[in-house]
Amino acid sequence: MNNVSQNRVCSGWHRQYTHDSEVLGCEMRFALFLPIGATTTKPVPVLYWLSGLTCTDENFMQKAGAFKMAAELGIAIVAPDTSPRGDDVADDDSYDLGQGAGFYLNATQEPWSKHYQMYDYISQELPQLIEEHFPVSSKKSISGHSMGGHGAITIGLKNPHRYRSISAFSPICNPMNVPWGKKAFSAYLGDNLELWREYDSCELLKRAKSELPILVDQGDADNFLAEQLSPEQLIKAANEWDSDVTVHMQHGYDHSYYFISSFIDQHLKFHAKYLLMER
Amino acid sequence: MNNVSQNRVCSGWHRQYTHDSEVLGCEMRFALFLPIGATTTKPVPVLYWLSGLTCTDENFMQKAGAFKMAAELGIAIVAPDTSPRGDDVADDDSYDLGQGAGFYLNATQEPWSKHYQMYDYISQELPQLIEEHFPVSSKKSISGHSMGGHGAITIGLKNPHRYRSISAFSPICNPMNVPWGKKAFSAYLGDNLELWREYDSCELLKRAKSELPILVDQGDADNFLAEQLSPEQLIKAANEWDSDVTVHMQHGYDHSYYFISSFIDQHLKFHAKYLLMER
Repeated sequence: MNNVSQNRVCSGWHRQYTHDSEVLGCEMRFALFLPIGATTTKPVPVLYWLSGLTCTDENFMQKAGAFKMAAELGIAIVAPDTSPRGDDVADDDSYDLGQGAGFYLNATQEPWSKHYQMYDYISQELPQLIEEHFPVSSKKSISGHSMGGHGAITIGLKNPHRYRSISAFSPICNPMNVPWGKKAFSAYLGDNLELWREYDSCELLKRAKSELPILVDQGDADNFLAEQLSPEQLIKAANEWDSDVTVHMQHGYDHSYYFISSFIDQHLKFHAKYLLMER
Repeated sequence: MNNVSQNRVCSGWHRQYTHDSEVLGCEMRFALFLPIGATTTKPVPVLYWLSGLTCTDENFMQKAGAFKMAAELGIAIVAPDTSPRGDDVADDDSYDLGQGAGFYLNATQEPWSKHYQMYDYISQELPQLIEEHFPVSSKKSISGHSMGGHGAITIGLKNPHRYRSISAFSPICNPMNVPWGKKAFSAYLGDNLELWREYDSCELLKRAKSELPILVDQGDADNFLAEQLSPEQLIKAANEWDSDVTVHMQHGYDHSYYFISSFIDQHLKFHAKYLLMER
């Protein structure tokens, strides 16, 4: 693992690392915020942040304004990249497929299946690496934005023993039924609808009561709301089993990091409630 | 004036505008953060933020994390561009001269003098425009980063009746004597050293006691500290007249927006003390 940059921020550190990912078969970069006071004898819990289409590990770290509250709460943040990367990695000219658009799933179709195993990377390989190399505990929660909100909810729901809480900004709640999701799932997963359901938050919620609390914030001036995001389907699915899902519709807010930065403190406090709880 | 974008943030608005600048002879873009509750009957004071080399109006607005505190204090923020722009505007291939590098002065030399009149733009034309079109008062303070910290201190010192307080992150304190400043001043101002002194914070502080409080934050892990920034010269010059200059050296911080975002709240509170004071 190589430390490729570091910046002191809010008394802690923002650092970028590269490493060779076994499950993705390529070099990956991630960013870590480590609050002051984190030591091997006093490890801190971790919030994983999954970014949206076209993003890298940098968008959240540069624009979310999360460090002050994370430092105050004593929570580390890890921001992975949004897909495998590299000249050898399959790609597509459009912004919503291929590099920068991994959709946090394990692809089964050529040419994607060789490298696009983001589900395994985020849920297993990366946390193992983080917990091995940094003064963090195994307590973790997961959050994300848009495609990353879809990733956070699906990965959290499928691994309730691994995470303590889930949150999302403007998530793609029902990818099976919207253009972004249909395009990505067709390419990565083929036409097997059973497999699509494995990566759809609404479908997962319909199966059983969620064991984890879920917080969602959605702006009502979001350009993608009507066509791509479907929070109403998430609420409907959660109601079937009375799952602990809270959706805040925020008036006037759009899909940008201006929205995220306005409410990230509330999400951090929400996760802290579960991450800092002894059990 | 055209409103070219808007994002709701922290209950207020981030908006970008373009307008034809008379003093610069080109179209300019600026960004405005307007907190909720600002109305013509309840106008808010304004902090002007001047950015550094290569920046536009966007860097501060996207990366500083200033909105939460600005909203709480009820302060608007205006972020202008760092130079005149456009195909007709003189430029240079290097990052530290020409477009993106206006140095907040009035150029006297060809080919720069036609458009590079940033001193007049920032100190007069832009505030007039802002106060005419938005629910803001005439109370204003000025801050900035690096080249913009140089701009904030020099413009503030030369116009103590216009501003209430000055602050800067990692300012170029003594441009006459460092590579960035020598290159820019030679090009924009020629070899007239008397004119150079008009745009050098240390020289201005040596002439008379500053009428305004000045707060400076500087990281000691800043790559540009040794060669370009000279905070020690600013302290020395301020001491000659016992001017109200406070310089905080911050351990481990660099020249980036990670540094700015760590201390912007303290700068906003510093300015609020003077901006919200009746007099």
